[in-house]
Amino acid sequence: MDINTFSKLGYGVYVVASGDKERQNAFIATAVMQVTAEPAKIIVDCHKNNFTANLIRELKAFSVSVINQKYKPTTIGTFGFRSGKDCNKFENCKEAIFGENTNVPIVLEDCVAWFECKMIKEMDIGTHVLFVGEVLDAQITAQNEVPLTYSYYHEIKRGVTAKNAPSYNKK
Amino acid sequence: MDINTFSKLGYGVYVVASGDKERQNAFIATAVMQVTAEPAKIIVDCHKNNFTANLIRELKAFSVSVINQKYKPTTIGTFGFRSGKDCNKFENCKEAIFGENTNVPIVLEDCVAWFECKMIKEMDIGTHVLFVGEVLDAQITAQNEVPLTYSYYHEIKRGVTAKNAPSYNKK
Repeated sequence: MDINTFSKLGYGVYVVASGDKERQNAFIATAVMQVTAEPAKIIVDCHKNNFTANLIRELKAFSVSVINQKYKPTTIGTFGFRSGKDCNKFENCKEAIFGENTNVPIVLEDCVAWFECKMIKEMDIGTHVLFVGEVLDAQITAQNEVPLTYSYYHEIKRGVTAKNAPSYNKK
Repeated sequence: MDINTFSKLGYGVYVVASGDKERQNAFIATAVMQVTAEPAKIIVDCHKNNFTANLIRELKAFSVSVINQKYKPTTIGTFGFRSGKDCNKFENCKEAIFGENTNVPIVLEDCVAWFECKMIKEMDIGTHVLFVGEVLDAQITAQNEVPLTYSYYHEIKRGVTAKNAPSYNKK
């Protein structure tokens, strides 16, 4: 097996958030996709050590924000590469709202669109867990901006992969 | 909810195949992603009406081939937009091999990389089913070619979405 083959799979780059008005957390994800159209459902893949995974399980809700290709490096730094166990990641977030259906935080900063989801099912897949979300609301916030792709983040911006990511390659 | 928000999610474009040396089938997928690194697992999302879904369930194996950005339109036509119930999709496929571990067909034509997977788990998500595959082998076949993305297929090549796709929008 050639481990580099996995880099040929295509992804966007997202902020996945959960919580409520009291406490919030979020992480940077690539493994997000729509899995049904009627009703619309999306799944997110989350490392079991991830603090946000606990919040999603407890509150049965999450949001996904699609990062803008013109993102500021601080956005990735705010939500990625550190744990919400040790800090309040939303302290430095300048623009966020709470979902009207679930009260989950939704990050707007450097994003082009967002989804608010009710978590309806989960699947244990080993080191990670898949959360299935029914989409309750979805809005585009920057129609003319281009969503960031993982290959652009990796190849053009020279971004690196966090160790909890499903695509993390120890090499 | 703005239904167009779903077009902001990022995907690659793949041929997902199953079968054995006697009978084969495949379909065009966008909803494929790596979900764990150790061991490496990928998931594919498949409409329940999809003929390949039956083969994956019966044979407990599938392959994923990553389509080249320089694909020929006939490749999408060969594997997409028709059902393997009514035709032998591999009849017109000029380049394919069988996986050494599982005997599943693996499409090489117009592809840059492939994965051979043992199906270890599935999850019912309504109209579709998620198959979790442990990756047994993975190879890059065209190192310098660019994988096709769904946004390139849609925006540059003006490709359309099949009605069994999870991102199908009736509008």
